[in-house]
Order: sequence, then structure tokens, then C-alpha cells
Amino acid sequence: MALAEPALAAREMVWRQVDPDNTVMLELQEGMVVIELNPTFAPETVAQFKRLVLSRFYNGLSFYRVIDGFVAQGGDGSDLGELSEIPLIDAEFEIEFTEELPWVEVQAPDLFAEETGFIDGFGVARDLKDDTAWLTHCPGVVAMARNDDPDSSRTDFYIVIGQAPRYLDRNMNVFGRVIEGMDVVQRINRGPVSNSGVFIDETAPTRIRSVRLQSEFPKKEQMQAFVMDTSSKAFDDILDDRRKRKQKFFHNQPPRVLDVCQVPVMGRLTK
Amino acid sequence: MALAEPALAAREMVWRQVDPDNTVMLELQEGMVVIELNPTFAPETVAQFKRLVLSRFYNGLSFYRVIDGFVAQGGDGSDLGELSEIPLIDAEFEIEFTEELPWVEVQAPDLFAEETGFIDGFGVARDLKDDTAWLTHCPGVVAMARNDDPDSSRTDFYIVIGQAPRYLDRNMNVFGRVIEGMDVVQRINRGPVSNSGVFIDETAPTRIRSVRLQSEFPKKEQMQAFVMDTSSKAFDDILDDRRKRKQKFFHNQPPRVLDVCQVPVMGRLTK
Repeated sequence: MALAEPALAAREMVWRQVDPDNTVMLELQEGMVVIELNPTFAPETVAQFKRLVLSRFYNGLSFYRVIDGFVAQGGDGSDLGELSEIPLIDAEFEIEFTEELPWVEVQAPDLFAEETGFIDGFGVARDLKDDTAWLTHCPGVVAMARNDDPDSSRTDFYIVIGQAPRYLDRNMNVFGRVIEGMDVVQRINRGPVSNSGVFIDETAPTRIRSVRLQSEFPKKEQMQAFVMDTSSKAFDDILDDRRKRKQKFFHNQPPRVLDVCQVPVMGRLTK
Repeated sequence: MALAEPALAAREMVWRQVDPDNTVMLELQEGMVVIELNPTFAPETVAQFKRLVLSRFYNGLSFYRVIDGFVAQGGDGSDLGELSEIPLIDAEFEIEFTEELPWVEVQAPDLFAEETGFIDGFGVARDLKDDTAWLTHCPGVVAMARNDDPDSSRTDFYIVIGQAPRYLDRNMNVFGRVIEGMDVVQRINRGPVSNSGVFIDETAPTRIRSVRLQSEFPKKEQMQAFVMDTSSKAFDDILDDRRKRKQKFFHNQPPRVLDVCQVPVMGRLTK
């Protein structure tokens, strides 16, 4: 039986090539997750994350705090404070909006912001008075965890695995998004609800086998990641279709609004 | 490292007992999923689903169409039309709103409706002019699939597994929601994207081992399901906390709005 679905197939899609130096291969026992880093919005966070990847910091660590419908948080789970040799990262919660950014509008007003849209496949919200823009906490978004201090991100990161926790927008260093393998992410073991998702049994969490950049692989073995080009006419047509919902299926016409986190922006990996 | 989380723990929660006759045990190879049926909003759909459960219709069938971030659809995947002996179900897309319903307001206006709130733990949206109310397509919601005809639901159902597809609101027979085991649902095998999530290899889909009502079990073996009582003062306090976000963690104060699909309403099962 049919159910109206995202109007994606059978259409001439335009794809954007992802920089191999911003393509992260996160290998779990359940499979491979591909993440695109976003140095436009979080340059320092991306730089530190890459240094950690290259130093093999994450290999063998785990997703030690996982709350179904919320986030899967990975890293070493320690909070060494001044004892850690790894520097803290300053807040990178928003950037100045400039005309050069490949913006496509999705919704104005949105429930949580004056305006939402996409920039390079990432959900973005804007404040028009301040002329600021920030990455929205959509499913698949990757961000750094922190303590109460806004400048206290360091190593541990989380992936959003449930309904967009948009109240975290403008409060976290969002620095990437999963472009392939969210089905793998959804298989990450959940922690006990009674302990805020933090595992007590250390054998239970899903392990991180390895984290590597595509650019680390020898040229011959490199894979090329692509994502839908959100600044293309083809993508704009998809947005238009989703707003109008002209299919006969819709007995009651939905309101002409779009949730930026409910528009799929797919990725793929080719040899 | 800490990350602001749903303010749920350590609070005196009030729980509502779920009728064992509306408590569905959906057993998959990956584990048990507990669904609460909602005869208030979809009486005929619930009645037909229960008949199908009691006749063991679903046992051995599978989730044959699964799109990550959207829905997992289960049943026999056939569309026998007039050849089927099982009757079609009329549209049960909305009900009249009456004062007797245990309504608690969440958000007005919401992006997709004039008002959202909860009734018996289910996300609900309202149209104030028409005095209608309908169940919102939040993650975990269970609804009947159909063809273009609004009165063409029959046997196949889907569970929402991604960002709320609210554009389907008021267009589907929503008749239940997962109150425990969404982590199990998230392990259901995804189908090929290139084939709209429909499996081609018949050995690949996740099988439905059995579907049973709690009321079918001998009294001694019955489990009792509970869900947070959304009409309690304790739950209203949670909503208030989530709107205000007073914790020191929030460097930028989030807007005072709530997404009805982002408020967890948890369930539990006890012997």
C-alpha cells in the first residue's frame, strides 16, 4: 500500500562533491558512517576534530552516553579539565550571514527562528536583525559536547538521533552532519534511561573502531562523497513540491510550511 | 562532558495505567516493542487492528518498506483490493474536540497548526474554528497505510522513525504510538533507497515474530504498561521547565516555544 513519500526519486538531481579532507569515515561494528565537516560554520572545532582524528584519539573509544530519540555521545567520557593536554575550543555558535553563502530559503517564519534554509546541505537558521546564521540541530547533526562554560568543548561529540532538539541551537559547536549511514547510527546501543543514558556496564556501549578522513587514504583507495546540491534549481523544485503537496493522495491539503529538519538532503559515496 | 538533556529524572512523576486491551506487544527478532492503541481518535481502526492481531494476521509478516528517517511499514505488502476478505476502514483523520478530553496545551501557534498539546500522552493538534483535533505524526506514532482513496486503509501499518512528517497529519488513520522499545524499532532493517525503501531481497526485511494484546495473556503472565500522565501537574511542570530553560548551560536563551514531537512521553512495563 502506498504512502506519500519524499519526492526525490526519478528526478534529475544535481550533486555537490564533498572535499575528501572534510569527509569523515566513522567505522562502527554496525557499519560505516560518513560525516561531512563544516569549516565555514565551525573552523576551530573542525580543525581540532581533524587533529584528534589524525592522532587516532577516537579509535577504540565508544558511544558512552546514548539516549534514544535524543543523542548518541562518543569520546572518552572523561572530563580532565586542566589535566588534559588537549586544548578547549571557543564557542562557535553562529557566524555572520553574508551574501556569498549559497543560501536557499526553506521557511519564514520557522517555529524557532525568523528564517530557515540550507547552506551546502546543512540546515541553517537566521536572525535578520543581527545578521547571524547558525546550524540547526536536525537529525544527523554532529556537534561537540561541553560543560556549562560556552568555551568548554574539547573532544567528545554527539550525533542527533531523534526529533530535532532545536532548543540547543546557537548553544553548541555544531561542526558536521551525517551524509550517509544514519541507519548505522540508529543501531548504536542505547544507555540506561535511569542513568541519563550513560552506560554503567563498560562492555555494553557501541565501540568506535576507527575514525579517518578520506584524504588519509592512498589516492587509489579514496572514495568520493557527494551530497545533493541544495543551491541547485533541482533542489529548489523539491522544496516547492514539498510545500505544495499536489498529489491526489492528500485528502486534506497540508499547510504550506516546511520543517528544515524534515527535508532529506541525501549523500552517497562512490569509488 | 555534560549536555543539557530532557528534564525528566529525579522528579516525582505521575503515571497513567494503560488498558491491557490497548497494550500491543510487537515482538521482533531485535526485541519487544510496546504500543498503546488509541480508540478515542481512531475507534474503527483500533477495532480492525485488534481483530487482525487476534487472528494472528501479522505473525510471520515483515517490515517490507523501510525508509530511514521516515517510516517502517509492516504487513503483507499486498494490495488485493476487492479480492481481500478483510474490509477497508473509513477515514478517521480527526475528531471533534470536546471539553471532556484531558487536554494540556503545548504550543500556540505551532508551525503546522493553530495549537498543539497532549491528550493521554499522544501529541495532538487542533483547529479552533472547526473545533477539530487530530493525532500528530510524531516519532513512534503508528498509523495505517492507504492508497489515494482516504477510505482505503486495511491491514498494513507504519511506525514513524524520523523527524515528524507533520504534512501527513489529518491525512492518515493514526491509531497508536510506541510507548516502549523505539530503540528496537530503530534497528529494523532499512530498504533500498533506490526502490522507495521496498525490499527486493525477501530475506532481508525484519520479521514480525508475533503481535499480541496484553489482555490475551493469562492473568498471571500479564504485564502492566504505564505512561507519563500528561494531564498531571508534574507533567505540566516539565513543559514549563522545557519552555523556560533556566539552566546555566544555556548561553543563548532558546525561544520560548515547544515542538510537541520533541517532548518525551515515556512508558514502562512492569510485572
